[in-house]
Amino acid sequence: MAGLSLALSLCLIFLPAISEASRCSIIGLPLVRNISELPQDNYGRGGLSHITVAGSLLHGLKEVEVWLQTFSPGSHTPIHRHSCEEVFVVLKGTGTLFLAPSSHGKYPGTPKEFSIYSNCTFHIPVNDAHQIWNTNEHEDLQMLVIISRPPAKVFIYDDWAMPHTAARLKFPYYWDEQCFEAPVKDEL
Amino acid sequence: MAGLSLALSLCLIFLPAISEASRCSIIGLPLVRNISELPQDNYGRGGLSHITVAGSLLHGLKEVEVWLQTFSPGSHTPIHRHSCEEVFVVLKGTGTLFLAPSSHGKYPGTPKEFSIYSNCTFHIPVNDAHQIWNTNEHEDLQMLVIISRPPAKVFIYDDWAMPHTAARLKFPYYWDEQCFEAPVKDEL
Repeated sequence: MAGLSLALSLCLIFLPAISEASRCSIIGLPLVRNISELPQDNYGRGGLSHITVAGSLLHGLKEVEVWLQTFSPGSHTPIHRHSCEEVFVVLKGTGTLFLAPSSHGKYPGTPKEFSIYSNCTFHIPVNDAHQIWNTNEHEDLQMLVIISRPPAKVFIYDDWAMPHTAARLKFPYYWDEQCFEAPVKDEL
Repeated sequence: MAGLSLALSLCLIFLPAISEASRCSIIGLPLVRNISELPQDNYGRGGLSHITVAGSLLHGLKEVEVWLQTFSPGSHTPIHRHSCEEVFVVLKGTGTLFLAPSSHGKYPGTPKEFSIYSNCTFHIPVNDAHQIWNTNEHEDLQMLVIISRPPAKVFIYDDWAMPHTAARLKFPYYWDEQCFEAPVKDEL
């Protein structure tokens, strides 16, 4: 019988020692990096702590990106969808995944609810609207988040009855905004 | 200052309760899965314990794949390269990454050595030959491994002086062999 336990503690204080320049470039970054020393911030989203473990803007990745995210009690993502694959590994805490399992209707509709918990994994089907809540009043919810094809374009819904066509584009991500440069358009 | 600690224990016994059929299909698999209850095996590689946390064959992913791998003291990967991106998150233990940082020569050449340790992350540049060793005599080395574009084709070297053109293709992966079906060729 396999046994697996993960325990992780992470405070929410941003590391001021890491300069703005090094946050937006791979220049000077060591290949092997201590996750405890990577910058973390909430990027204006209350209750969130985000670390880009391996990223497109920071580390030049083109096909995958890995985040470490911590949600304080009661905090949650917006209802959103994206056209990339996303895999979660829950390191700590408990919560609820809300998932509207069909992207073929006019709007997400009533989502299915799934309990998520430390040591579980799940993935979000491409383009399915979803939302993650830390529904535990006492404990942080901490997850490794893996996405494909970064940087992803996210479409955000006000509620589950909002039409897919009305969802608002959020690009770049909160944590990429400081570093993102729009690609030069091909003039041809 | 950010503090992060991960502690994980994992034994090497394969779970016989999971049937062969369910190991090769998403049918009947829950969306949220307890990693402690996923099948693990060494697939004929001594010292290895592998779990496909989220996979292409098992879960229908096309763009990313996530493994949990444990190396016993002294065990290691072969020297190998692949044309996908790969990100590691070390959960437990210490070891050494050997990386031949240029894929432009005729053979990998003398690799650079990097110490790896619990709570560190690193990524392997596309097509660079590399090898990971658990060089700790007393403790397992455990990592989450993320690859893009699964299932990846791996090319294996006998040593660092073997020409790139002589490296042997290993496809499918050890853990996919039981489930892999060659795609039907387009007859046109």
